[in-house]
Amino acid sequence: MRRILTALLLALTLPLAVRAQTNPEATAIFAMLNKSAADWNRGDLDAFATSYKNSPDILFIGRKISRGYAQMLATYKASYPTPEKRGQLTFTQLEVQGLDPHFATATGHFHLERTPAGGGNADGYFILVLEKTPAGWKIVRDDSTSLPKP
Amino acid sequence: MRRILTALLLALTLPLAVRAQTNPEATAIFAMLNKSAADWNRGDLDAFATSYKNSPDILFIGRKISRGYAQMLATYKASYPTPEKRGQLTFTQLEVQGLDPHFATATGHFHLERTPAGGGNADGYFILVLEKTPAGWKIVRDDSTSLPKP
Repeated sequence: MRRILTALLLALTLPLAVRAQTNPEATAIFAMLNKSAADWNRGDLDAFATSYKNSPDILFIGRKISRGYAQMLATYKASYPTPEKRGQLTFTQLEVQGLDPHFATATGHFHLERTPAGGGNADGYFILVLEKTPAGWKIVRDDSTSLPKP
Repeated sequence: MRRILTALLLALTLPLAVRAQTNPEATAIFAMLNKSAADWNRGDLDAFATSYKNSPDILFIGRKISRGYAQMLATYKASYPTPEKRGQLTFTQLEVQGLDPHFATATGHFHLERTPAGGGNADGYFILVLEKTPAGWKIVRDDSTSLPKP
């Protein structure tokens, strides 16, 4: 699967007709991440969180390392309580690489468009480790670090 | 394997006697990362690079995304040409989590102790995705972002 998935370097904004030509697993991951950004952008953090595996073992790496679905969702709700704080999230430079039939990584760039009152824009590269579960592809590790502002 | 590996939260500086009690796969990964830091600290970047899988598909995520063993090694040699620039590397808060028998993640904190002339200290959290290859556990994805200095 790795060879099939490798080199799928696609922005999430590519039209569905283009993405439909790619490997079905990569297409499923793109669709999941598209949904995740849409959930974020309409302020539904409970729906956004379902992109992650509901497990106490999942890890988030940023300015610290935190653990588990419940803590992740609580932190998101505490840190992004208003539309201004959440801003509008977009992913670009997205690439999926398969590891084996049950695991893959996705890398890309995130941009959070926010007013100065909301905290200003935030940008950075990320890597996700994804697991193919009975409920679909789910994030099990997320390293999303905001880059220092220029 | 995940349950066995989960919760192995060990500093790399723990004595071998302690680490020997853990899962053998985690022990092998700890040993590989220990060797990698030792290779770095004596300035042998060719040996340091062998912690990574020799593949054009491996990815490094930091202030940008770069790809492949050859580019990785060339970038390391260009960015860290002298003992002052390389400094002394230590890993702490290391945790290994298995994904399946052939893949695992390792998370932790890196510290680069450097003189002001070498660029000053650098710190950050990282995640590695590791693959069990015939030559042992090798890094296939590395997201190591230096945190903004306080």
